[in-house]
Amino acid sequence: MSESPPILYGYWRSSAAYRVRIALNLKQVEVEHRSVHLVRAGGEQHTPEYRRRNPEGLVPLFIDSDGTCLTQSMAIVEYLDETRPGPRLLPPEPAARARSRALAQVIACEVHPLDNLRVLRYLTHELGIDEPDKLRWYRHWVAEGLAALEARVTEWSTPFSLGERPGLVELCLVPQLYNARRFDCPLDDYPALVALDARSRELEAFRRAAPEAQPDAIPA
Amino acid sequence: MSESPPILYGYWRSSAAYRVRIALNLKQVEVEHRSVHLVRAGGEQHTPEYRRRNPEGLVPLFIDSDGTCLTQSMAIVEYLDETRPGPRLLPPEPAARARSRALAQVIACEVHPLDNLRVLRYLTHELGIDEPDKLRWYRHWVAEGLAALEARVTEWSTPFSLGERPGLVELCLVPQLYNARRFDCPLDDYPALVALDARSRELEAFRRAAPEAQPDAIPA
Repeated sequence: MSESPPILYGYWRSSAAYRVRIALNLKQVEVEHRSVHLVRAGGEQHTPEYRRRNPEGLVPLFIDSDGTCLTQSMAIVEYLDETRPGPRLLPPEPAARARSRALAQVIACEVHPLDNLRVLRYLTHELGIDEPDKLRWYRHWVAEGLAALEARVTEWSTPFSLGERPGLVELCLVPQLYNARRFDCPLDDYPALVALDARSRELEAFRRAAPEAQPDAIPA
Repeated sequence: MSESPPILYGYWRSSAAYRVRIALNLKQVEVEHRSVHLVRAGGEQHTPEYRRRNPEGLVPLFIDSDGTCLTQSMAIVEYLDETRPGPRLLPPEPAARARSRALAQVIACEVHPLDNLRVLRYLTHELGIDEPDKLRWYRHWVAEGLAALEARVTEWSTPFSLGERPGLVELCLVPQLYNARRFDCPLDDYPALVALDARSRELEAFRRAAPEAQPDAIPA
């Protein structure tokens, strides 16, 4: 008798869900994907049924085979690293782990929270910010974060953050650069990040996790 | 010959530095505190000397006795948990660890990034948002995050997130509620969080970490 697979509630364009998809692929964990449409009908993440499972009203939501129900992409990724065999997503030594987490957190705590859908909506609908100022906001926080990351990433001599393999840093960086391109953020000042992103996206685990490769993707 | 103590660059009112101070106290790690004044003269975090150590231009910055230089409060806290003896800041089982991290990340990734100093300044100086709208913004994100947390925290029957002891959740919650009170955010809807905050602040580790107990505090 086979166990039921874990379930990932996500959305093709959610960069937090994109992070988890990459982690699952790197770990070769098969999951059932369920789409939570963040835009249609005011957002399916706000339905009472979904909120009961995740009071934050956000994706991703991960439900493991044993029923363990987890929110927050970064917590889910570390859980996968602690519970699944396969390549480690974080290095083993504490100082190196802390540096990987810190780089990932520049994206997860300094850039993405300011530029996600609910925040852009609040700027537009509650504060009356116009489109050019909204874009300026978006690009400002991307530029602040990427400049800090570029200064750090150039310290490495290896192709990926874990040497021969990508890990937590890349699974945050690639979705963030995907978003940055959607909003036409200039990336000329971050050649090391752009190269790291390109190297990562050549890998099968990243290709399969790309927004456009998801069944719920809406063609442009 | 005694080793030189670790150094924490912080600021009394920085809630990210406040988290790390609590973690250090819970672990009974003695450090040398160095103040980085975030307001005076445009912000000491932007000086070239400080930026060389921390390109993000943020506090805290932690330098361990062996010279290991770490940024991002959440990464520093996990590093302390992995390298220092004493009470664990995270529970041992992966699912419980993930839930602790997720609760902490509601604050670290959903509330604090939207309400910190540099963001409030951008709203005022770059987008021309007036004081009432800035406060509305501040309180909105606090309310969103605390409502999600309240729903979760009430699932516990134990006094603290780790049973008899506080950990990662409390060291994020207490600084966030400190900030919420500074900005007169209504807290009536979060009785479980307010009680958890009060229980935590009775403990010596939290009392010694409070902003007003720091040498660089400016009396009201």
